[in-house]
Amino acid sequence: MPAERRRSWWGWGWEDEALPPDTVRKLGQALAGRFGGAEVEIREPAALDALELRGSRVSPPSALTELCSGSTFDRASHTYGKSYRDVVRGFRGELSAPPDVVAYPHDETDVVALLDWCAGANVAAIPYGGGSSVVGGVEAGLVDDSYAGVVCIDLTRLDRVLEVDGVSRAARIQGGALGPVLEEQLRPHGYTLRHFPQSFEFSTLGGWLATRSGGHYASVYTHIDDLAESIRMVTPCGVTESRRLPGSGAGPSPDRLVLGSEGTLGIITEAWMRVQDRVRFKASAGVRFASYDHAVDATRAVAQSGLFPTNCRLLDSGEALIAAGVDDGSSLLVLGFESADHPVDPWMARAAELCRDHGGTVPEGIRSSGPDDAAAAGREGAAGAWRNSFLRAPYGRDALVSMAVIVETFETACTWSAFPELHAGATAAVEKALAEICGGGWVTCRFTHVYPDGPAPYFSVTAPGRFGAELDMWAEIKAAASEAVLTHGGTITHHHAVGRDHRPWYDRQRPDPFAGALVAAKHALDPAGILNPGVLIDPA
Amino acid sequence: MPAERRRSWWGWGWEDEALPPDTVRKLGQALAGRFGGAEVEIREPAALDALELRGSRVSPPSALTELCSGSTFDRASHTYGKSYRDVVRGFRGELSAPPDVVAYPHDETDVVALLDWCAGANVAAIPYGGGSSVVGGVEAGLVDDSYAGVVCIDLTRLDRVLEVDGVSRAARIQGGALGPVLEEQLRPHGYTLRHFPQSFEFSTLGGWLATRSGGHYASVYTHIDDLAESIRMVTPCGVTESRRLPGSGAGPSPDRLVLGSEGTLGIITEAWMRVQDRVRFKASAGVRFASYDHAVDATRAVAQSGLFPTNCRLLDSGEALIAAGVDDGSSLLVLGFESADHPVDPWMARAAELCRDHGGTVPEGIRSSGPDDAAAAGREGAAGAWRNSFLRAPYGRDALVSMAVIVETFETACTWSAFPELHAGATAAVEKALAEICGGGWVTCRFTHVYPDGPAPYFSVTAPGRFGAELDMWAEIKAAASEAVLTHGGTITHHHAVGRDHRPWYDRQRPDPFAGALVAAKHALDPAGILNPGVLIDPA
Repeated sequence: MPAERRRSWWGWGWEDEALPPDTVRKLGQALAGRFGGAEVEIREPAALDALELRGSRVSPPSALTELCSGSTFDRASHTYGKSYRDVVRGFRGELSAPPDVVAYPHDETDVVALLDWCAGANVAAIPYGGGSSVVGGVEAGLVDDSYAGVVCIDLTRLDRVLEVDGVSRAARIQGGALGPVLEEQLRPHGYTLRHFPQSFEFSTLGGWLATRSGGHYASVYTHIDDLAESIRMVTPCGVTESRRLPGSGAGPSPDRLVLGSEGTLGIITEAWMRVQDRVRFKASAGVRFASYDHAVDATRAVAQSGLFPTNCRLLDSGEALIAAGVDDGSSLLVLGFESADHPVDPWMARAAELCRDHGGTVPEGIRSSGPDDAAAAGREGAAGAWRNSFLRAPYGRDALVSMAVIVETFETACTWSAFPELHAGATAAVEKALAEICGGGWVTCRFTHVYPDGPAPYFSVTAPGRFGAELDMWAEIKAAASEAVLTHGGTITHHHAVGRDHRPWYDRQRPDPFAGALVAAKHALDPAGILNPGVLIDPA
Repeated sequence: MPAERRRSWWGWGWEDEALPPDTVRKLGQALAGRFGGAEVEIREPAALDALELRGSRVSPPSALTELCSGSTFDRASHTYGKSYRDVVRGFRGELSAPPDVVAYPHDETDVVALLDWCAGANVAAIPYGGGSSVVGGVEAGLVDDSYAGVVCIDLTRLDRVLEVDGVSRAARIQGGALGPVLEEQLRPHGYTLRHFPQSFEFSTLGGWLATRSGGHYASVYTHIDDLAESIRMVTPCGVTESRRLPGSGAGPSPDRLVLGSEGTLGIITEAWMRVQDRVRFKASAGVRFASYDHAVDATRAVAQSGLFPTNCRLLDSGEALIAAGVDDGSSLLVLGFESADHPVDPWMARAAELCRDHGGTVPEGIRSSGPDDAAAAGREGAAGAWRNSFLRAPYGRDALVSMAVIVETFETACTWSAFPELHAGATAAVEKALAEICGGGWVTCRFTHVYPDGPAPYFSVTAPGRFGAELDMWAEIKAAASEAVLTHGGTITHHHAVGRDHRPWYDRQRPDPFAGALVAAKHALDPAGILNPGVLIDPA
């Protein structure tokens, strides 16, 4: 990366994009009002210069020295992912267990050499893409002491689009390419991967594949799982690469074992990905519902219609107020259709009709645009602004951390029949925890994805914390939320992965025989157990 | 099944639906003309009464006796699947290695007890649904002699729809339910699984899941993989059952290890399946192309359009002639859209437009129907007739076997960019083999499924064989076809599974590290190695 622009070593994104002090102060005042308390105190993050990291316990062999860094910045900025807990600890300067070495391989050969070193020297290897894990997936300090040390393998120098097959609309892309980096290389060919998780700017293709990233869009081909045509991964037992196939029925899918393996089976060096033509037609509408239950029914009808909306984001009244200024207590369903090929107005019209059948209203009507539509640019601008705000949200969290506000999100998926009780149960459990622990705060819910058989609800929690006690308070809230999700039939994660933080609930959710199969597969591919120990399964 | 209706013990389907002798004779005359030879000789299949099966090598423990059969009919009819080779051997009465016992469990407890017996007594267990495998997936004779015997576990008594969740549109269905059996139970609820492989009448849900069945429809959610919400499977290490989840990112998918496991990891006893409302709207058209290359380009454009056609079946000129009477040398693209929710005319119109852009013509126009359309019933009738003919095709193969005609299909999937060479290469290789081995015959191609990144081509071979030599002739043709598919970047199977017959090519296609992981998973779940030994991987 250019020297003039630096990633924050403790918080989100670029240092120079952090919220300015004035904005932080205003946010603090607004929250103080909402929490009904006194003025919010705002503190400063620990200074990088003041950090005294423990000494490295291992040194790379001389052949690998030039790939490796032991600098304070590199080690500090690779100590944690970007969960609330991570950001708070970074902010405080609590970095008791940084990685011993941060390695930056240039190519697959370097990756092989690094894993060889680790396997031979009993060094744990943590694959690291953009470092946006919110589940302890890249945390050196969570690796147990049976290892001689921990090397963090930062893949972001493997960042090229190597090949584009325009006939098949696929591209061979290196695993360390960050979202904007790969999109920039696809654009001249007229293509896009069109995978936009909230972490888009600071997460990589390899990370998306390893964690089964959900993407931004609501339905049909949105998961990274479905966009992968073939995957190439370095394991301690050799390189595994699946054939480029649009579909296959030849035994269990090799790719589906890699997808979700979270760096425990190997390091994804490249993949052939299904890319798309750039969108030319759009239609969208905001549908309001006085009744949340009716809004859920309408969303279900759209999800089961076979229309496959691009956006189908149901915001409860709390989210509708915060995100869209809807102040009459309505829920808001943000519906949208997009296509590179054809106008999508008939799709949009039918989806709106389904919503009206369930009591929805479309006060602002349907917005539609095509490539020749003079107004399209303006709307693209508005959509761009929204997307920008979506992508910038994590910067806001850094600001909230500076005033000891607790912010957490938890997300799941469940069947439509399970949703009402899951929603009520999770909301009640978290509200109870907030009342007891924080004396205030709120929880809101939106759907990020919808399926014919159920939604993916995403809950956001905001509450007043106390400096020094935030992490204990957060842990209780997180446990209450996770417990409620599991009890009511949800998955512990729809698109945030398992890492080490979700293990207690993941272990209960996962069928035991499958756990045995997974452990066996891990031992076959990584006999020394060096890859991301503690993630998904216990170290051997 | 009712006593008055019996499955053919050697050929396809119901005995009383076999082609009548007169029809067989006419077929023989037509083929003799086409092969340019003399009259075709028609022989009779071996008589069941005349079979002398080798004695059973094992006996079930007394507690399991009432589930087990050693009758000649049961053992003979479970000796093979339904590949060409299987039907020829059955027809000839060559049943040198039938299963020692055929077991019919009534419920999951019986399945557990049967596997316990097998594991304790070193008896190989072959899970058997409808017995329609065309890849040696259920063949006792291919199990090596290190086992004390082979029991075929016929699951068709586990045939009930146990629960329907109308809100989530999902149903819990037992693994042994044949296609018509489960559809009949879903119909009163207004639902359908809408999964119609050609074997539909004689294959089971568990078999579809274990072999990654492709289904009849061309795009989007058509594979059984995508219709499964959760799967329950008995393994020798216990029962594994995934959560009912519409989506999840919690580690590698447990279901995706079961899908394609072909009975090597366990026996699928039930699954929650995503069902659908019954179709109410249809639109379809037959598009003709003078140039096959243009037809492929048009099909690709439709596959990449995001329209998600229900049917998108490109028949080359040979198939168009045979299946639809198109006698001007055109290729025919059979396009169709269906919905339970909305008229699909805009979808159909855009797809037809894309075809016209590539030189296609729609001589008979677009046919469209809705629930209130008086003509719909008639068209449903025509569609029903086509479907009936599709489902009845395997009966025709039995007739061809009786006259020593070699019939084989092979199917694959590849990228659009690889298709022209794969098509030319496979066609040339098979035509060369036919000329050398049979002195005649032909190969045709159609697409059964299309994806944004490639088609699934399906090749049909018909050639004159010689009584007694058919299987050697067939084996050479099959090897030539398989070799060509693999060489040109295809998969050895898109939806026919691997079994034992496809192993040589599957082993080359499968990445070695993944093979190691699969073997390890197998040993973890089936430590005694009793489940379907030789399928997918070598016995331990």
